[in-house]
Amino acid sequence: MIRFNCDYCEGAHERILRKLAETNLEQTPGYGEDHYCAEAAGIIRSLCGQEDAAVHFLVGGTQANMTVIASALRSHQGVAGAVTAHINVHETGSIEAAGHKVLALPSEDGKITAEQVEELYQAHIRDESFEHTVQPKMVYISNPTELGTIYTRSEMENLYEVCRKYGLYLFVDGARLAYGLAAEGNDLDLKSLAAACDVFYIGGTKAGALFGEAVVILNDELKADFRYHIKQRGGMLAKGRLLGIQFGELLRDGLYFELGAHADRLADKIRCACAKKGYPFLVENTTNQVFPIMPDSLLESWKDKYSYTNQGRVDESHTAIRLCTSWITSGEQVDILVNDILNS
Amino acid sequence: MIRFNCDYCEGAHERILRKLAETNLEQTPGYGEDHYCAEAAGIIRSLCGQEDAAVHFLVGGTQANMTVIASALRSHQGVAGAVTAHINVHETGSIEAAGHKVLALPSEDGKITAEQVEELYQAHIRDESFEHTVQPKMVYISNPTELGTIYTRSEMENLYEVCRKYGLYLFVDGARLAYGLAAEGNDLDLKSLAAACDVFYIGGTKAGALFGEAVVILNDELKADFRYHIKQRGGMLAKGRLLGIQFGELLRDGLYFELGAHADRLADKIRCACAKKGYPFLVENTTNQVFPIMPDSLLESWKDKYSYTNQGRVDESHTAIRLCTSWITSGEQVDILVNDILNS
Amino acid sequence: MIRFNCDYCEGAHERILRKLAETNLEQTPGYGEDHYCAEAAGIIRSLCGQEDAAVHFLVGGTQANMTVIASALRSHQGVAGAVTAHINVHETGSIEAAGHKVLALPSEDGKITAEQVEELYQAHIRDESFEHTVQPKMVYISNPTELGTIYTRSEMENLYEVCRKYGLYLFVDGARLAYGLAAEGNDLDLKSLAAACDVFYIGGTKAGALFGEAVVILNDELKADFRYHIKQRGGMLAKGRLLGIQFGELLRDGLYFELGAHADRLADKIRCACAKKGYPFLVENTTNQVFPIMPDSLLESWKDKYSYTNQGRVDESHTAIRLCTSWITSGEQVDILVNDILNS
Amino acid sequence: MIRFNCDYCEGAHERILRKLAETNLEQTPGYGEDHYCAEAAGIIRSLCGQEDAAVHFLVGGTQANMTVIASALRSHQGVAGAVTAHINVHETGSIEAAGHKVLALPSEDGKITAEQVEELYQAHIRDESFEHTVQPKMVYISNPTELGTIYTRSEMENLYEVCRKYGLYLFVDGARLAYGLAAEGNDLDLKSLAAACDVFYIGGTKAGALFGEAVVILNDELKADFRYHIKQRGGMLAKGRLLGIQFGELLRDGLYFELGAHADRLADKIRCACAKKGYPFLVENTTNQVFPIMPDSLLESWKDKYSYTNQGRVDESHTAIRLCTSWITSGEQVDILVNDILNS
Repeated sequence: MIRFNCDYCEGAHERILRKLAETNLEQTPGYGEDHYCAEAAGIIRSLCGQEDAAVHFLVGGTQANMTVIASALRSHQGVAGAVTAHINVHETGSIEAAGHKVLALPSEDGKITAEQVEELYQAHIRDESFEHTVQPKMVYISNPTELGTIYTRSEMENLYEVCRKYGLYLFVDGARLAYGLAAEGNDLDLKSLAAACDVFYIGGTKAGALFGEAVVILNDELKADFRYHIKQRGGMLAKGRLLGIQFGELLRDGLYFELGAHADRLADKIRCACAKKGYPFLVENTTNQVFPIMPDSLLESWKDKYSYTNQGRVDESHTAIRLCTSWITSGEQVDILVNDILNS
Repeated sequence: MIRFNCDYCEGAHERILRKLAETNLEQTPGYGEDHYCAEAAGIIRSLCGQEDAAVHFLVGGTQANMTVIASALRSHQGVAGAVTAHINVHETGSIEAAGHKVLALPSEDGKITAEQVEELYQAHIRDESFEHTVQPKMVYISNPTELGTIYTRSEMENLYEVCRKYGLYLFVDGARLAYGLAAEGNDLDLKSLAAACDVFYIGGTKAGALFGEAVVILNDELKADFRYHIKQRGGMLAKGRLLGIQFGELLRDGLYFELGAHADRLADKIRCACAKKGYPFLVENTTNQVFPIMPDSLLESWKDKYSYTNQGRVDESHTAIRLCTSWITSGEQVDILVNDILNS
Repeated sequence: MIRFNCDYCEGAHERILRKLAETNLEQTPGYGEDHYCAEAAGIIRSLCGQEDAAVHFLVGGTQANMTVIASALRSHQGVAGAVTAHINVHETGSIEAAGHKVLALPSEDGKITAEQVEELYQAHIRDESFEHTVQPKMVYISNPTELGTIYTRSEMENLYEVCRKYGLYLFVDGARLAYGLAAEGNDLDLKSLAAACDVFYIGGTKAGALFGEAVVILNDELKADFRYHIKQRGGMLAKGRLLGIQFGELLRDGLYFELGAHADRLADKIRCACAKKGYPFLVENTTNQVFPIMPDSLLESWKDKYSYTNQGRVDESHTAIRLCTSWITSGEQVDILVNDILNS
Repeated sequence: MIRFNCDYCEGAHERILRKLAETNLEQTPGYGEDHYCAEAAGIIRSLCGQEDAAVHFLVGGTQANMTVIASALRSHQGVAGAVTAHINVHETGSIEAAGHKVLALPSEDGKITAEQVEELYQAHIRDESFEHTVQPKMVYISNPTELGTIYTRSEMENLYEVCRKYGLYLFVDGARLAYGLAAEGNDLDLKSLAAACDVFYIGGTKAGALFGEAVVILNDELKADFRYHIKQRGGMLAKGRLLGIQFGELLRDGLYFELGAHADRLADKIRCACAKKGYPFLVENTTNQVFPIMPDSLLESWKDKYSYTNQGRVDESHTAIRLCTSWITSGEQVDILVNDILNS
């Protein structure tokens, strides 16, 4: 069985394991107040070109999302996002459990637009009984999105402009950022991303780390007391250095970006094979997630050979699936799959 | 200015005011543990034909909704309702503030169907990562709905059947129940309603009381410790007898149902006038809310004469509005309006 | 049975009932946006000498407490108060349900001091792992306290000074304010109170209204978006004018203060009788609540004659009780009680 | 600098690192549904003698505490614990953020008794206005406690008896369980512990793992839907096998218990040296945390040599401190410290 069902099937990049072993017996302060976290935060600030950014390391994405959002909002405020947003559908209502409504905006490809945000805000303030409705205060996007699509630099800048115009915070979930920044058609880098939002995170879990998300807070309003929230939401790792060490290895010399590019190139091969065979896509994209619509008969024959994610029946005999490559997917694994697609 | 913008523009039925004055200096225990509340609860149990029902009196609808829902659900559970449901759009996220997601189902007329609930539940349990999504546990409907439509007895029974099949609670918001039970086409009464749901409430605020909603809990699972939740959510009125007295007056001899019928008949007149003039309706219904689509020019001329609710622009020159009659609307007020419609 | 168990056994002052009847059929906008609320708010601003104060009318005390506190705090922040504070013991954890810890400070008489607040704050910032503990951000006091004691002007000013020094909000629960302002030894009035805190409320429920608390927000930081929170917490009364009308009657010409004085003078008589008989007090105070420690044998004989609150067994044969007078307690009722005390 | 300030200064036991490296490239399902977690859960069930126990692996203690508690309680229910309990003082109000009050019971040594629980429960149901107070529903203890003391088997059984009598859940925080089970005077083991509570966890973070707590649910009522709560609270590790692998290594052949014993024996040496010099203890205990009261002059001389936790000034010239040994503390490190104590 070869697993293409997600990008977190294996452990971590070998450099990370090696560094964890080397530093294992060193004594450090806990809770992220060690020199490894300080060093990794410094690298991130530098890569972002934002020396005043606050950098915090959390264990996972749901944790990062709920901590950032709950820390930023008052109880009458909500966070807007695509109807497909991870916080809207796949985090067991953690945002609501923290007291906030997710304001879902329609989306076909996982993205939302500056126009949608403008309209949401205008509709709110235009409402005669606006105080009876949730006040939009934050916009959440993921880049890449849950459907593997990416935002261009100008799309990001437009979103940020409308957000600033109305005092909304723009939050970018970068759980798969590695795969976004390396994708064909991407024109963002950490600097331009950091310049076009209030807070975002650099995902480690899905890109070579054992676990870990680096939250980067750009807006001063969101910086105060953030560590209280990390602790309160259960995200403050006792041996916090594990996070600093991992991000240090990933970001020190560009390994993170190489791992992203590696996965994207392999995904391109799969996309290419699907296209060659005429299999359509649920959504067109260029990152490490591929969403072909396949004949059920073919999928039946793959049952014990590949694992993938079922995205739902499309018609009587076809199903949309998700195939993920990752930082560790091998060319050989992809070749076997591509071969099976081409010979189907 | 004649107000048709809502059904709570005036005070209370004169019988209520009189009774409040008569009983004013009587000393009673607080918090709803007085004999007036006991008596009113008895009347309600009897009208519902459910001697074991738990009856509690709360001050308002948002309070009743959040108390019932927060009391019933564990934090990973959500409440399903129409996208137009009051809890989804007009209670400032009170359900989310209590920690629960509202699972919005599409609806054109404010109603949802047993099939939609079936599908929602099936989709949840079919999901490979169902534990990453909110578990549907309660279904919320309002009768009449926010769009003035009503559920038939068989629709209610179908909904309740699917709820029982999957262990979901069915909760009926009856803020405007008086106007539903008296509407043309209605075949429910308190008995059949109480037999087809787990909990509902009888709205007083919009039907002749100064304020007050009588929550009727049928399902034993939902009865335990409910008073703690009333207190915790701020809904336990110190002088609780004010609620008992009001519901006693409304329900003792059928006044509540007469008031509902009165408003519905007047709304019928308005509907009739609109139809005569060929004004279409945003939604067809038979209760005290009328949703005609009117020429903007006509509305302009009404500016200082009538108040109504704006339901949104329909095209370049027409707007949907809401006109409400109520327990106290007079035939004269309606005649003036009807005249203006017919002569428009 | 004469009820001395609380100060909300009866309805409302006759002037209020009369005004409700007079205005009953007037049509007004809902949700507190009517002219009665505007007028009452104006009277309050004027009495407080604070033309910029935001005034909001809520139905009850628990509702007012949770709305003010939840509106003011971020989720890592707590509210400090006496261990006996109403929010700590008698609101079913409503503050915690809104996500905030109540930081209980020891108190014998229901009051807390500026020194305690200073110490609490210092202990927090001195803590090596302060981010692992709740940040004190608000101080809650009640005046009179739950034990009927009152704060002097200088005590209030000291508390407010330490609060401002550390950026804490000072919130005064005035559910029984009428009885505090009229008490012997009191040197506060609405002006000096409003000048010495960030937000407080004027209690109507226990002082002549059917229900109602007038929240007065002095600090600009706490004003923004407060109405969203009233709605979200279920406190926005549809027929909001009921609150405006009541506070208008109570405050227009000083009725509120007369009612407070009436009750305090009657309580003084009870206190006097207890002292004459040598019954000690659980706590010494001068407001409408009296806390004598009585022989159980005497209480036994009162079983069917008086109702009072049991404050707990003091020794084998004595129990502390609470006797409340109120705006409507009659001299005759008190005379009967005083007689029974003196002849015991 | 030698760190005795906590028991999580280093990484993990070498066997764990080795196993993580060996299994690094294996593909497994995520979210704890892999064979390593299944195997570790099996070992735990077997060690507990409870084949029906539900075992879940979480990343850290605060996360485990809030997930267990929030999953178990309805919103009007609270959790009782010692005033010193970790959930009461060192988790930034995470329990309150999840909506529940911590009911703090007085304690000198970090422990609470069956009598205290009995009294708490009785006081609640005896209260005339019990519905206005938080309902006690769970009892939280830590073993060892935050002060390093331990519960005997009979103390545990008494606590559990009173809990079962009143339908309260007993929850044992075992963050330092390794050090409790190996302590002098301990007569509990996993079997007897599992038989005397409803839910507990086996702490890995402080006893040889990189991170991880194994939650063991014994009571069927608490088992349903627990994984939803793990996800909602941000505790569902994508690469869940990291937890299974670690607990497998720790528990397969008793390593966990050896590591606990190692630390306890070294702590005994420190205690012994303190006693010899006549330094009193803030609290007497037998686990890996030692709480001597030391002269400030001595502590001053240690400034650059040892790190420890400050427990507060005791008098003008003495301070209570905490010295922790751990699974990895070396005999040499302790010898240096002991020497310095003896020669002080």
